[in-house]
Amino acid sequence: MKILVCAAAAVLGLAAVPVRAEVIAVVGGTIIDGNGGAPISDGVILIDGKRIAAIGDRSTPIPSRARRIAAQGKFIVPGLMSTGMFLADGTWPPLTILYEGRYDEVAIESAQLALKGGITTVFDTWGPRDALLKAREAIKQGRVPGARIYLCGTWVGTGGPYSDDMRSQFKEAVGEPFAARIDALWEANIGEELVAMPAEEVRQEVRKYAQSGIDFLTYPVNVHRAGAARFIVFSPRVQKVIVEEGHRAGLPVQAMFVSTDEGIRMALDAGADIVAPVPWGGRPMSAETVALLAQRKVPVLDMTAPAADLEWYRKHADPAAVKLQEISDRRARALIRAGAVTLSAPVSGAYSADQLETWRQGSAPGTHAPLGEGHVRSLQGMQDRGMKPVEALMTATRNMARAFKVDKDLGTLEQGKVADLVVLDKNPLESAENYRRIHLVIKEGRIVDRDALPTQRLMTAQPAAAR
Amino acid sequence: MKILVCAAAAVLGLAAVPVRAEVIAVVGGTIIDGNGGAPISDGVILIDGKRIAAIGDRSTPIPSRARRIAAQGKFIVPGLMSTGMFLADGTWPPLTILYEGRYDEVAIESAQLALKGGITTVFDTWGPRDALLKAREAIKQGRVPGARIYLCGTWVGTGGPYSDDMRSQFKEAVGEPFAARIDALWEANIGEELVAMPAEEVRQEVRKYAQSGIDFLTYPVNVHRAGAARFIVFSPRVQKVIVEEGHRAGLPVQAMFVSTDEGIRMALDAGADIVAPVPWGGRPMSAETVALLAQRKVPVLDMTAPAADLEWYRKHADPAAVKLQEISDRRARALIRAGAVTLSAPVSGAYSADQLETWRQGSAPGTHAPLGEGHVRSLQGMQDRGMKPVEALMTATRNMARAFKVDKDLGTLEQGKVADLVVLDKNPLESAENYRRIHLVIKEGRIVDRDALPTQRLMTAQPAAAR
Amino acid sequence: MKILVCAAAAVLGLAAVPVRAEVIAVVGGTIIDGNGGAPISDGVILIDGKRIAAIGDRSTPIPSRARRIAAQGKFIVPGLMSTGMFLADGTWPPLTILYEGRYDEVAIESAQLALKGGITTVFDTWGPRDALLKAREAIKQGRVPGARIYLCGTWVGTGGPYSDDMRSQFKEAVGEPFAARIDALWEANIGEELVAMPAEEVRQEVRKYAQSGIDFLTYPVNVHRAGAARFIVFSPRVQKVIVEEGHRAGLPVQAMFVSTDEGIRMALDAGADIVAPVPWGGRPMSAETVALLAQRKVPVLDMTAPAADLEWYRKHADPAAVKLQEISDRRARALIRAGAVTLSAPVSGAYSADQLETWRQGSAPGTHAPLGEGHVRSLQGMQDRGMKPVEALMTATRNMARAFKVDKDLGTLEQGKVADLVVLDKNPLESAENYRRIHLVIKEGRIVDRDALPTQRLMTAQPAAAR
Amino acid sequence: MKILVCAAAAVLGLAAVPVRAEVIAVVGGTIIDGNGGAPISDGVILIDGKRIAAIGDRSTPIPSRARRIAAQGKFIVPGLMSTGMFLADGTWPPLTILYEGRYDEVAIESAQLALKGGITTVFDTWGPRDALLKAREAIKQGRVPGARIYLCGTWVGTGGPYSDDMRSQFKEAVGEPFAARIDALWEANIGEELVAMPAEEVRQEVRKYAQSGIDFLTYPVNVHRAGAARFIVFSPRVQKVIVEEGHRAGLPVQAMFVSTDEGIRMALDAGADIVAPVPWGGRPMSAETVALLAQRKVPVLDMTAPAADLEWYRKHADPAAVKLQEISDRRARALIRAGAVTLSAPVSGAYSADQLETWRQGSAPGTHAPLGEGHVRSLQGMQDRGMKPVEALMTATRNMARAFKVDKDLGTLEQGKVADLVVLDKNPLESAENYRRIHLVIKEGRIVDRDALPTQRLMTAQPAAAR
Repeated sequence: MKILVCAAAAVLGLAAVPVRAEVIAVVGGTIIDGNGGAPISDGVILIDGKRIAAIGDRSTPIPSRARRIAAQGKFIVPGLMSTGMFLADGTWPPLTILYEGRYDEVAIESAQLALKGGITTVFDTWGPRDALLKAREAIKQGRVPGARIYLCGTWVGTGGPYSDDMRSQFKEAVGEPFAARIDALWEANIGEELVAMPAEEVRQEVRKYAQSGIDFLTYPVNVHRAGAARFIVFSPRVQKVIVEEGHRAGLPVQAMFVSTDEGIRMALDAGADIVAPVPWGGRPMSAETVALLAQRKVPVLDMTAPAADLEWYRKHADPAAVKLQEISDRRARALIRAGAVTLSAPVSGAYSADQLETWRQGSAPGTHAPLGEGHVRSLQGMQDRGMKPVEALMTATRNMARAFKVDKDLGTLEQGKVADLVVLDKNPLESAENYRRIHLVIKEGRIVDRDALPTQRLMTAQPAAAR
Repeated sequence: MKILVCAAAAVLGLAAVPVRAEVIAVVGGTIIDGNGGAPISDGVILIDGKRIAAIGDRSTPIPSRARRIAAQGKFIVPGLMSTGMFLADGTWPPLTILYEGRYDEVAIESAQLALKGGITTVFDTWGPRDALLKAREAIKQGRVPGARIYLCGTWVGTGGPYSDDMRSQFKEAVGEPFAARIDALWEANIGEELVAMPAEEVRQEVRKYAQSGIDFLTYPVNVHRAGAARFIVFSPRVQKVIVEEGHRAGLPVQAMFVSTDEGIRMALDAGADIVAPVPWGGRPMSAETVALLAQRKVPVLDMTAPAADLEWYRKHADPAAVKLQEISDRRARALIRAGAVTLSAPVSGAYSADQLETWRQGSAPGTHAPLGEGHVRSLQGMQDRGMKPVEALMTATRNMARAFKVDKDLGTLEQGKVADLVVLDKNPLESAENYRRIHLVIKEGRIVDRDALPTQRLMTAQPAAAR
Repeated sequence: MKILVCAAAAVLGLAAVPVRAEVIAVVGGTIIDGNGGAPISDGVILIDGKRIAAIGDRSTPIPSRARRIAAQGKFIVPGLMSTGMFLADGTWPPLTILYEGRYDEVAIESAQLALKGGITTVFDTWGPRDALLKAREAIKQGRVPGARIYLCGTWVGTGGPYSDDMRSQFKEAVGEPFAARIDALWEANIGEELVAMPAEEVRQEVRKYAQSGIDFLTYPVNVHRAGAARFIVFSPRVQKVIVEEGHRAGLPVQAMFVSTDEGIRMALDAGADIVAPVPWGGRPMSAETVALLAQRKVPVLDMTAPAADLEWYRKHADPAAVKLQEISDRRARALIRAGAVTLSAPVSGAYSADQLETWRQGSAPGTHAPLGEGHVRSLQGMQDRGMKPVEALMTATRNMARAFKVDKDLGTLEQGKVADLVVLDKNPLESAENYRRIHLVIKEGRIVDRDALPTQRLMTAQPAAAR
Repeated sequence: MKILVCAAAAVLGLAAVPVRAEVIAVVGGTIIDGNGGAPISDGVILIDGKRIAAIGDRSTPIPSRARRIAAQGKFIVPGLMSTGMFLADGTWPPLTILYEGRYDEVAIESAQLALKGGITTVFDTWGPRDALLKAREAIKQGRVPGARIYLCGTWVGTGGPYSDDMRSQFKEAVGEPFAARIDALWEANIGEELVAMPAEEVRQEVRKYAQSGIDFLTYPVNVHRAGAARFIVFSPRVQKVIVEEGHRAGLPVQAMFVSTDEGIRMALDAGADIVAPVPWGGRPMSAETVALLAQRKVPVLDMTAPAADLEWYRKHADPAAVKLQEISDRRARALIRAGAVTLSAPVSGAYSADQLETWRQGSAPGTHAPLGEGHVRSLQGMQDRGMKPVEALMTATRNMARAFKVDKDLGTLEQGKVADLVVLDKNPLESAENYRRIHLVIKEGRIVDRDALPTQRLMTAQPAAAR
């Protein structure tokens, strides 16, 4: 066991602990361990240093030197995990302008918002690789608090924030030279030009990128552009090359923006480990594809929101927008019914007041929930569509850890695992809203000072005028 | 032989000939038969009815009842064949508005312009299927003169003139209801919605379309949209389905808009019979791809223009536009050097005065040469890039006939073939410009009254204001 | 009296009548003469040739040779007059394309739709001068039936259909050369370039234009462009020059697109005879301006629709659009309350099925009522806002005739006036809807064959595809 | 004299000087005093405190306690004055985003760049009033160095940076809430809504604004929008109201963006003190207008650049752009020939590297010269068009001081005037380029530490990525 822990520590980059670690006992709460079984009432979780030393009912022995945390009437869940978020959302021009050279700090702020909301681990979906690496290390090495970061940087073959793949309409506002500079930060060596390359040239570039320190590799199956989302980015041959190079570097590979049944099939044929379906192909996922995903147990990102949102769109949005919402809704329901492995992926980030206000118009209330809040809507959405609450929790814990191959250390409350946990005042299995009733967050065995988060407000600062 | 002719007649839809056919002897000219060999000086071509009864030197016996056409000092080439053109160019809004319900007449006008210019056969590249079928039949049955038409209608999975694949920016100008009506004419049952369909649904629709009377089937490999041209329309699996259904209906299948090396490979893997590379992927075709095309003898559309145009662009156009011209130029040279099978494909049609004037700005002089003229620029372009004149002629005759599987009847001057020929005043092997020096055009054994063409001016009429 | 009649005949261009004119007696109806007084029950209108020979109660002597038209239970109103319409609406690109060279025929079709709907006189608000002159003459000389046309052509200093003043966004769709040609037809010699000219140069151009055969002169006070409608086109000095030149040519001068209180004041100071306020300044007309218009008895165009439309906008449109509707509504109510002289100006024309369908989206039902129907909505609107029915009728009869200085001949049912009248089956003073219940239209003493109108369908033809 | 100085000190806000002021003697240089006469060779300028105590030839007595500055071989000109510049250029979105809440600091940086370049006084042409006031005071009170600032804030009736009057196309990039907040800073109480107001309402708002601490009042005659620049913003009646309120507050009134002859006439009729003609009306200024301006001695802003730029445009720009350049060129030449009072107004500001690089494309080299450099191009331009060098200097000194009514203190080198002067190494009357050869700048009697300017780099800092 000891050896295992050490190996895991190496993987997670846990710093060596010279002094005797603190021992904490969370006593008396209802433990929902993330494995999907029945909760343990009046349970005990014993934490020694960064890991869970023991877990069980009241009879679990508690060392005398342990700091006891009373959890009677509380509910304990694993530290939540989230994907689908952007720690540094380059599509918002003011962010790119205000914090040029400081995107790592923005990412840390985001990771702190996440942690404050009970999310101990984030899998960043798209961002400037080098800044994210910097933020990841700062948190990993304990220099700043924050949710644990895993990152993929940009998507293979995709342009940066001011490219045609994202918001080229804003290029003029910020000026070409700035746009080019920022795009280069995102694109690293795997930008748009890869799309036209022959397979072996793609391989060279992806190999270099896969070995640059990222935690997983993401590539788009379909095109990330309004009106062109049914088209395909890479030939299946190139897709296979990308997955091969990801796997060669020991990384899980995520297939993003899969908008058609053919897209899902190509992603699976290529060997992708995770798929992210989107509704933009304009057709519901076929029953065959749903069955295929469920049967192969491929983790699927779920970006849907509470079912009530759909009603909002039906009232306020144009038919084309409603149709997309309906396709998503229908797909999510079908996948849940079929028992597919689902991952909670609420699109979220650290948003400025201006950004939230801008988005408020035209979206269902709460749509752009900031990091640390979005997951509540996500988990609610899954339950609205028929998932059991205990399984919804797994989409943000065990499923996620397995999907991203970090389940040796993370994702459940089990002896030997890293001690990430959230103590809630109310039962989350009764209502997803109760995930907001946070009593305490423990990350790597330490109690998080939530009131101090974020330690520096950048995106979430008041506008200058209001100061 | 007789049976063969009859079978061919059936294929071409030649009407039964109750009376004794006219016999024509073209005597004394230099015959360039389209097979690439040395010309026959002082030759004789004997035409009996619609076909060539004999071809040879002066010793060829000429029946006394034959009508003799003196061709001393003239040059005789096979009736020219052209592709890459739009008999009814739906991207020009005034055409769609002015001639709604009469697109067949526009197509006939175009086919007559072609014929006037020595082009006896056209392979229409994109248009409203039903109107083109109507035009084809009117000409085939001899109700109106015109170049012989072969058509594919629209491309599988592609929207009509006012869709995002073409000119959606003009939709507002013509109004949604009109745009929808016109798009439907083009899209038949194989419009944009096919792109998101699973393979077997695509099969059903393509099967229906392939059996609707078209002559060849066209599908796009890459996306026909500015800025998105490197993306892929259909998965290879669907591409195979499309080709299968084309072949099942006995049709050659043409892969359009191939912008990347991967695209070429997918088209070939799918079994496409003809490929049309475009430069919009932004990279030159790789040496491997050039070699592959040459080795497999796959006919390749060449849409380049005289090399001198490139100089014009270097002087007047922005660097991005120049780059595309250079990629095309480089590809054309490489394919010619490698000995690839090339087809002359000058983008052309029946253009209005307004259209030509509109296009004049921003393009090299002569770029939008109307039907019946564009091929001269095309053939010149190939010679500029190293092709021998006699081979350039083959790109518009034998290569084309073979590519589209009509070489049993068309493409060369040989005994038994349909008597399509052009008598020129000057030697076209000396200068491509000499293809303009037409003395006589014979189509299916009949002398064409070129002065009477087009029989009705629609697109080529004077603007109302100028009348 | 005779002399007067002759003079009037000359003015109206009534052709000499060599044979004895027909005499018609409309007997037994309720006559609403357009002067605002109480209707005459069981009245008699005696028409001799083109004019009203007598009008009165049942005791009015009827010559034996008179053709008697029984009107018991019917209601007789003066032939209606309408302004605010476009006989050839150049803002619809398909119209300009399809009927280039035939805009006079479109104008005639429009005038026939008007006549069919009981409108015997139209004051065209904007159009291609020469084509409108041609249409006016064809109708005046009796070559074709139709409402009597008065025209101003374009507005001084305003660009044509494809200019920035109208629909420059459609220029690319039709091509520059076409756009330039069409714009030139509208602009004559008084296009956009006048806006930058010094006053005396403007004078020269307007003088020429005013003497070119038009019936009244129109100039814009504020700018006819979205987002720029509060700005001013001409300096007051130039406005005075324009009005002077209009008056020098004996023409009434209409000030269009007056969007601000300052604009109204400038128009009045310049001496304009008619003003057309629009809501686009974004502020309600001030009480002072309302009082000023009412006190000076300046005829004011009313382009509002039934008050019920406002509710539609409040439900379906964005706040900015609603605000404009409310400003119009408020202004119309205030002007009516103040007793201003109002002219019925329903925006209307001969619209194609595509055009109506295109407009249907985003507008209150019925908004784009075609010519011959729009006036019902206009008259309804005025009554909705407090105008008495008998006064509403005057906005489309006597007020209009006086405003455009043709009240010597037109606008009321009085002895000596031109015999334009509409016989209705139901009482229009009970409901504006009853203006649709047309029994008979008489124009210049002749019964109109309404069933034969329009004599040629252009704009109102079925789309080609539906034929 | 003493009293006068005190009064002037009060006007300029010169702080009371408790200690005995320094006395400086600039000795031996060639003095070009800005009055247009012949230079004084081997002259002496004696400065006592903030003012010039004496000026004359070598015989001028120099107190022994004076600090002597040797100026043999040097050339001394009055401190330069500039208008046409934007100390905080709100049209560049990154500026507004990066420095929200700190626009005063940006203005100070700009004023320091100006001072470094020999410009001791700037008349800011458009900016956020409150930030400019803050910057003005900081410099006036000696808290920071910088050119003396006079400001007008925004233009009456004009929207802020993200309004339709400026760059509404950038609104989406920064988000509506931010855009609204920034626009409000510029618009104060005199934004776009004034354009639709009746005259007396405009008066109330302008009165409030004129008394808010600004130094002069600016209003636009014509519209500041592409394609609408020939239209008029305010009726002459409202223009008079604006000028009256400016004058009531003791402010000079500047008429901006006058694009037509009618516009010039309206500005003069309204009583404007300074006019700024622009070429966007598309017609050259008429000879009458040129004569009128010259005769009335109305100061005219000259925004032209070296004549050589015109050649650049003829080679690289489209005909419409060239035409505007030609109109400006022609107008400038005509005004110079006619002897009009001209003010040097090089459009300039503190530009970022990105901004300069962005602008570099499509403009003649040097067009967007930053503050402190632009005036060299401006003075060169005037000399290119026939102005004598000594008069060109006056456009940036005496003419400017008189136009803005500060000539009692500023604009020339004369006894009693504020001691603003520039010592040049080479003769500026030989070449305008020599204005760059700065030996020394003295402002208010103190030698400026030019090397220390700007004291804080904001706009002129290196991009974050390059740091």
